[in-house]
Amino acid sequence: MSDLPKAIRINEEGPREGFQFEKGPIPTARKIELIDSLSKTGLKQIQTMSFVPPKNVPGMVDADEVVQGFTRAPGVSYTGLWLNDKGLARALASGKLDVKGSLSLTASEKFLLRNQKRTLAENLEAQHTMVKMYQQYKVPIERGGLMAAFGCNFEGDIPIPHILDMIRQMLDIAAQYQFELKVVSLADTMAWATPLSIKRVVGAVREKYPQLQISLHLHDTRGMGIANAYAGMEMGVAIYDAAVAGLGGCPFAAHRGAAGNVCTEDLVFMCEEMGIATGIDLEKLIESALLAEEVVGHPLPGCVMKGGTLARLRQKIRDAA
Amino acid sequence: MSDLPKAIRINEEGPREGFQFEKGPIPTARKIELIDSLSKTGLKQIQTMSFVPPKNVPGMVDADEVVQGFTRAPGVSYTGLWLNDKGLARALASGKLDVKGSLSLTASEKFLLRNQKRTLAENLEAQHTMVKMYQQYKVPIERGGLMAAFGCNFEGDIPIPHILDMIRQMLDIAAQYQFELKVVSLADTMAWATPLSIKRVVGAVREKYPQLQISLHLHDTRGMGIANAYAGMEMGVAIYDAAVAGLGGCPFAAHRGAAGNVCTEDLVFMCEEMGIATGIDLEKLIESALLAEEVVGHPLPGCVMKGGTLARLRQKIRDAA
Repeated sequence: MSDLPKAIRINEEGPREGFQFEKGPIPTARKIELIDSLSKTGLKQIQTMSFVPPKNVPGMVDADEVVQGFTRAPGVSYTGLWLNDKGLARALASGKLDVKGSLSLTASEKFLLRNQKRTLAENLEAQHTMVKMYQQYKVPIERGGLMAAFGCNFEGDIPIPHILDMIRQMLDIAAQYQFELKVVSLADTMAWATPLSIKRVVGAVREKYPQLQISLHLHDTRGMGIANAYAGMEMGVAIYDAAVAGLGGCPFAAHRGAAGNVCTEDLVFMCEEMGIATGIDLEKLIESALLAEEVVGHPLPGCVMKGGTLARLRQKIRDAA
Repeated sequence: MSDLPKAIRINEEGPREGFQFEKGPIPTARKIELIDSLSKTGLKQIQTMSFVPPKNVPGMVDADEVVQGFTRAPGVSYTGLWLNDKGLARALASGKLDVKGSLSLTASEKFLLRNQKRTLAENLEAQHTMVKMYQQYKVPIERGGLMAAFGCNFEGDIPIPHILDMIRQMLDIAAQYQFELKVVSLADTMAWATPLSIKRVVGAVREKYPQLQISLHLHDTRGMGIANAYAGMEMGVAIYDAAVAGLGGCPFAAHRGAAGNVCTEDLVFMCEEMGIATGIDLEKLIESALLAEEVVGHPLPGCVMKGGTLARLRQKIRDAA
């Protein structure tokens, strides 16, 4: 039955995506509470914060305090996001994060200009600067991210040869600076992907660059998130970003209405029911999702947190028998 | 790339599912307005009403008035639901519906007892009574529906051999009364299905009964609706029930929170973007979805109605160029 992986790894992006997107303000203590709750679910990686100027993203004004506040749980990797040297310096200074370098390209120049005020060429140049800095601070670089890989609200559909060329640019940088690029993350930043385009793009990348592991970052703005994740699994993709309760969305992507990343607990539910191990305790994760809803103060789009798990129903049926 | 159909047929169940589920009351005129709006979208079949006692389903108190009120559009089949002779008599008396007979079995006896107060044996006997009545009134019978085919909140997982046996019971009735059963509808009444169980059950039914077309009735309570529909398409399934804006849910199924059928416009979006024809004008359907939200007076779970179509974004990009 296709190429479903035996296990997947989930990078929890709810705190960073959520606190970035929410109009807030959310008390620092509650942000910390959510991160600490997530660290007890079996999640192996939690992206906690974005070290960006608060004038651009007001919800990140307390990024340093949040990082100082959470309690590191054993076996959990805590990551952060930054776009320049100042952000990296803050992440390093925290002494609490698992600082990992990453190349960050964007498939659409029009989106890049809005999101980071850079041309494709300027952004490529910036990657060289970042890599030099990572190497100076001995920060490992194993991953490259490609935003808007499945389409762009400002540029439209993205041709597959262009995606392959952007990845080649990443590999060229890796070769030049002598590090191994292990993972490429394809981001459906503006929710243009369908299961079929996931299969086409992932298939093309796998064929051209078989040495790379592929990771998917999916948004659910058009309701395709879980179906797209499933299509990725059918192509053997085993690394997914997700956000608890469906927190998040990118404030620069011209999203209307129900934005948000693919929901972590819905993804975990699907995987566990299909026999794909996630290492995550779904009931505990639902507790975190309910906490997330409380923290942001409005309903979030996650479904399993409202519909409940089948494991619990099965237990109830066994207990009644 | 797998077995995706070139076109699918969608049976719109929003009015019936929605008016059944909503606490209401919804004015009769608004129900009629929604049905008339849906009939202008390219949908070929709309299930308008359930002819059941209003004491069980208060939202159906005005079923006869709604049916009298809508304007038949050419090329659209208007259907209704009933569970006994009284309901069928009302549907026939309306003179406005495309009355079609259907066998209705349920895979879980515990659910059947709650939902229809019948044992499996009593329900099978009731099918004979219904078929005799259909034949007496010259109502064609082409379809059989199997509720709780993917799992039950009260009985748990449903073994595939049991599903195959229930379908055999339908075929036995068809043979006995000399009609051709063309379509079997598998209903994930309580949202237990995952893409993998869809593939397993559909695969088993297709293998055992290759002469039958399969139709899927999917609920989105656990966020799997669109992914399950996609899995169905990969197995060649080309008939889907859906509800505009994600209206609906079954009040007897112990659903909590976000129940509802798979959302019609999200399904149409996925299909059209993947090159699977639906015959539906997505922008018009979104207008109906927004109307549905207005009619029920609270947000509904549909995503594309909030996130917008890619066709419109592509047009905007072309206009700006």
